[in-house]
Amino acid sequence: MMIPTVDIATRVYNHKWKIDPIVRSLIDTDFYKLLMCQSVFRNRPDTNVTFSLINRSTSIRLADLIDEGELREQLDYVRGLSLTRGESTWLRGNTFYGKRQMFRPDFMEFLENLRLPAYHLEKRDGQYELTFEGKWPEVMLWEIPALAIIMELRSRAVLKDMGKFELQVLYARAMARLWEKIQELDKLGSDLRIADFGTRRRHSFLWQDWCVQAMIEGLGDRFIGTSNCLIAMRRDIEAIGTNAHELPMVYAALATSENELRQAPYRVLADWHEEHDGNLRIILPDTYGSAHFLEHAPGWLAGWTGIRIDSGDPAEGAELAIRWWQSRGEDPREKLIIFSDGLDVAKMAELFQQFHGRVKVSFGWGTLLTNDFRGLVPGDGLAPFSLVCKAVAADGRPTVKLSDNPEKATGPKDEIERYKRIFEVGAQKAMKVEV
Amino acid sequence: MMIPTVDIATRVYNHKWKIDPIVRSLIDTDFYKLLMCQSVFRNRPDTNVTFSLINRSTSIRLADLIDEGELREQLDYVRGLSLTRGESTWLRGNTFYGKRQMFRPDFMEFLENLRLPAYHLEKRDGQYELTFEGKWPEVMLWEIPALAIIMELRSRAVLKDMGKFELQVLYARAMARLWEKIQELDKLGSDLRIADFGTRRRHSFLWQDWCVQAMIEGLGDRFIGTSNCLIAMRRDIEAIGTNAHELPMVYAALATSENELRQAPYRVLADWHEEHDGNLRIILPDTYGSAHFLEHAPGWLAGWTGIRIDSGDPAEGAELAIRWWQSRGEDPREKLIIFSDGLDVAKMAELFQQFHGRVKVSFGWGTLLTNDFRGLVPGDGLAPFSLVCKAVAADGRPTVKLSDNPEKATGPKDEIERYKRIFEVGAQKAMKVEV
Repeated sequence: MMIPTVDIATRVYNHKWKIDPIVRSLIDTDFYKLLMCQSVFRNRPDTNVTFSLINRSTSIRLADLIDEGELREQLDYVRGLSLTRGESTWLRGNTFYGKRQMFRPDFMEFLENLRLPAYHLEKRDGQYELTFEGKWPEVMLWEIPALAIIMELRSRAVLKDMGKFELQVLYARAMARLWEKIQELDKLGSDLRIADFGTRRRHSFLWQDWCVQAMIEGLGDRFIGTSNCLIAMRRDIEAIGTNAHELPMVYAALATSENELRQAPYRVLADWHEEHDGNLRIILPDTYGSAHFLEHAPGWLAGWTGIRIDSGDPAEGAELAIRWWQSRGEDPREKLIIFSDGLDVAKMAELFQQFHGRVKVSFGWGTLLTNDFRGLVPGDGLAPFSLVCKAVAADGRPTVKLSDNPEKATGPKDEIERYKRIFEVGAQKAMKVEV
Repeated sequence: MMIPTVDIATRVYNHKWKIDPIVRSLIDTDFYKLLMCQSVFRNRPDTNVTFSLINRSTSIRLADLIDEGELREQLDYVRGLSLTRGESTWLRGNTFYGKRQMFRPDFMEFLENLRLPAYHLEKRDGQYELTFEGKWPEVMLWEIPALAIIMELRSRAVLKDMGKFELQVLYARAMARLWEKIQELDKLGSDLRIADFGTRRRHSFLWQDWCVQAMIEGLGDRFIGTSNCLIAMRRDIEAIGTNAHELPMVYAALATSENELRQAPYRVLADWHEEHDGNLRIILPDTYGSAHFLEHAPGWLAGWTGIRIDSGDPAEGAELAIRWWQSRGEDPREKLIIFSDGLDVAKMAELFQQFHGRVKVSFGWGTLLTNDFRGLVPGDGLAPFSLVCKAVAADGRPTVKLSDNPEKATGPKDEIERYKRIFEVGAQKAMKVEV
């Protein structure tokens, strides 16, 4: 009497899938990609940009783990996607940060007609060389799907020989672990503000979706939303995000003089300033060193809502921001600091205790929210790793990122040295990049 | 596209259930109840016995937690059960401990025609008084279903206001906890032998079934089986069990002289000796004190396969047994000691280290296998508690149990004193009864 009955139609239907698509929607991406895309579409639509996948954890030989045919199938599937009517309606009609019609009609029309451009895939030294080349507003939308696909194919490769029971225990343990983390966060009190920033390094789509539900259940409105547009739409929560290193990196690569290069990061934010206000005016100061950036920042930047700290020692970065605001006559208590670099609960608790009351504190919790399977399979085969997909060239010129951690620097060696000289970046404290 | 489709027929069918039965089979009971029932059916079929539910954890006010109507529904449902054809075939045809046809045809016929007798239920002081009175071989089969029903109704009462997500997290945490315990047990090596003895105090039927699967997955053939006949049948594993205190308690109550009373525990095992051999010859010495029992035991008992230690300090009990075997010229290394009292992993590891190699060690893991939800809900409302269902009278005379722990003694005070005198039980070490 307790043998479960099988729904034959469901079973037959399931067997008809040729692949199990990882990314099933063009808005299964981070909200800031769409915001940046609109900005690029308006200001630099014809720039030719190359995005490239970079696995900073070289010990994980992705090309040995992931079948090339499966990877191509998944990437091809994404090339077949277009914005659905419901997705378009949600983007056009939704309120983001209290603002309606944040996406202009011309941009929406572009997005509705968009198909992602071709990719280039090769194997080399146990890694995949995966690159996307084309018009900036089109290729930039490959970043998140490419990362999500590689991350989930890697999860599937590790899980494929596990039995049903082992899988059940694995997810039970991962759920129990996340729930304990959320209970720790709950103790931080009613002023906590935290968002899911974990799309790019997620274990899988379904797992990210579960993590978001757990955050909703455990933290209520202290969980302010997710960077993932599809999940935000489905779960009826806020989509969260502003801008990223991509903008100053490409603007900088396009600079034709040292002075233009020095001004590039501010130029990005000047363009942003024209388009956005309020919660979307968040400074990301670290692309070429936060200290230099803030010291030379134009006056109007101090009026922005907050700063996102994404590399270097986060407490030092926050203290730097606070001193900067004070030096510019701003009250730090009115300012928002968003921590978003490699966070887990202990670090968030420490930062919250240190800065709560001095500034408005918010967290963008990424990899260790949506992909903490550390220690849960033999050989730690599901441990998260440091995979990025970056703009590496713009109109034929290499891009450079320095950040506040030399371990996170990208670009050709001589270009890095040139940028360091121009942005007056001296000795930096190296910090291990784990995720 | 990812909204799960509902199977309408399943949904409608599920809504037709008037109740969700907790005990759905007469063999959802401990194997030793059937073995003892056969023995009683042969040797003492006309004895009139009263079984009574006793909640030793009086702080848990069961009558406030559990609705009387629901309890009656569940008990009534069990009264409607009879042995199915498949269950009968399994009992008749199976091999238990390598022996075929352990259940005699006359007993099988009795069992096939059995319906459980009436129950008597009253509320008193926040507790239920639940008693079963009738012919011993019939009423004795109420013990396990009655306990399982009360335990699961209590779980349901605590869980009923929890949302779907909370429940998912709860079970994920319980699964993760059990799996960690099993991994600890796995470290004890290849000589570990352990069985599920957790039917009577289980969180629920489905949870016990999951726990058994976890033990199979995690320990392979070191998990030697389950006391639960239904789960043994469904999961195709060994049904485990021998005999319990019920036999000497009733035999003792029926004794008409002090000498007969003193001999009652041996009389039980003499009857058992005639019927069973090998692994079923397990001494349970503690009903009226293990030391006195072993000291005065007849010679043939030393030839039995092993001893089950179910009260008192388990290490002391095992040392006592080892000395006893040695004093009777037996080699303890050929003997089996089954520990079965309030075990959890740390205690099992300790006992295993202490006795492995000196005797054959086996564990009957009960409540903390199938009902460890400690600390998982607010107010610890799912913590296991000490509920028993005991034979309290036989042919109008009260039963007595002393055990090796005065906290576990049952019976009228003056009778306990009389038994203590007759069985020469002096001072005993009190140990807290947790489960």
